[in-house]
Amino acid sequence: MSHEQHADLIKTLHECTEACNHCYDACLREDDVKMMTECIRLDRECADICSFLEQALSRGTPFATELAEVCAKICEACGNECKKHDHDHCQKCAEACFKCADECRKLAS
Amino acid sequence: MSHEQHADLIKTLHECTEACNHCYDACLREDDVKMMTECIRLDRECADICSFLEQALSRGTPFATELAEVCAKICEACGNECKKHDHDHCQKCAEACFKCADECRKLAS
Amino acid sequence: MSHEQHADLIKTLHECTEACNHCYDACLREDDVKMMTECIRLDRECADICSFLEQALSRGTPFATELAEVCAKICEACGNECKKHDHDHCQKCAEACFKCADECRKLAS
Amino acid sequence: MSHEQHADLIKTLHECTEACNHCYDACLREDDVKMMTECIRLDRECADICSFLEQALSRGTPFATELAEVCAKICEACGNECKKHDHDHCQKCAEACFKCADECRKLAS
Repeated sequence: MSHEQHADLIKTLHECTEACNHCYDACLREDDVKMMTECIRLDRECADICSFLEQALSRGTPFATELAEVCAKICEACGNECKKHDHDHCQKCAEACFKCADECRKLAS
Repeated sequence: MSHEQHADLIKTLHECTEACNHCYDACLREDDVKMMTECIRLDRECADICSFLEQALSRGTPFATELAEVCAKICEACGNECKKHDHDHCQKCAEACFKCADECRKLAS
Repeated sequence: MSHEQHADLIKTLHECTEACNHCYDACLREDDVKMMTECIRLDRECADICSFLEQALSRGTPFATELAEVCAKICEACGNECKKHDHDHCQKCAEACFKCADECRKLAS
Repeated sequence: MSHEQHADLIKTLHECTEACNHCYDACLREDDVKMMTECIRLDRECADICSFLEQALSRGTPFATELAEVCAKICEACGNECKKHDHDHCQKCAEACFKCADECRKLAS
């Protein structure tokens, strides 16, 4: 079944969703919030698509490949933005995003 | 701004989400529900991605093109399934899906 | 059917989702973004619950009353925050939120 | 921070979302799908609100209590329906739902 076949990716998507939502929350609390606007924006994009794909995979979506391809792109973009910032939440988020992008690309290819 | 630029598509996505969710609900009430399982499944896939894209466009997502491409494929698949069934809710849903697929393709290309 | 019974509220939820997502996007582009962080945060909360309730009503959810009660509270809170800011997108968003809160309360009671 | 404070509930919500989406998928594949329509419907309601609350908690929502209260009710209803069916996926889903309802009620109270 789909949810077993994709168990590793579902876990990774879950961790990436968490990391992005936490980074979003933490960025909004930073003093230098003006510098973090692109990070805030991409964190939400990334959390939303990861959560969407997680649900889709666990219900056996017939569109796993197509959704994973888009998700990989969004994770990559979010990771690249987060990587620029020294905040611990940004660095951890970048790591979660790049891991998730890699696993999504494997499914998409 | 993004939400004005995409006002027509946002409206179409909203109508497609509604049609799919209504068709999903109505299929689950049909006597021949066994025949409707693929329709139920695709209605949910389609409602969820249309609602997702609608929100993404209205918040100025940088991934409009990529998301519209996936959305077009899912709308097309849902429309093709709904078209097979004579129920009024299926025929109306097919129409909403094909219209939405067309508009998504325009954005994606 | 549920989606006809709740047609007016579904439309209002859709408009509130749009207004909140647009306000979120616009707040992130403002020079005084530091002043807008609570607005950004509540815009997302409100857009997400309104979009959720819109989908739930259109699929005939058995939990319309309970969800509408929560949605009313979130719309109210978002409206109160937006009302504080002079930006046109905030004032328009406050108006959409208060209208939506009112209609949700009617369903919830 | 919110995502640490609620780490256990976030994990439980994630597991409940998975169980509900898997049960939904499996119900649609059953021969006796006509008997499973209420289960299919509630699985989706429950997966969607659990996924919503999971995201909300991980972004530090100010509405944790109110959302957890609604989520507890929906988990309870889904668990009660799943419990009626002997399918392994239904029994496992019921268990996940009741556990999640309990934890949500703790947060709500």
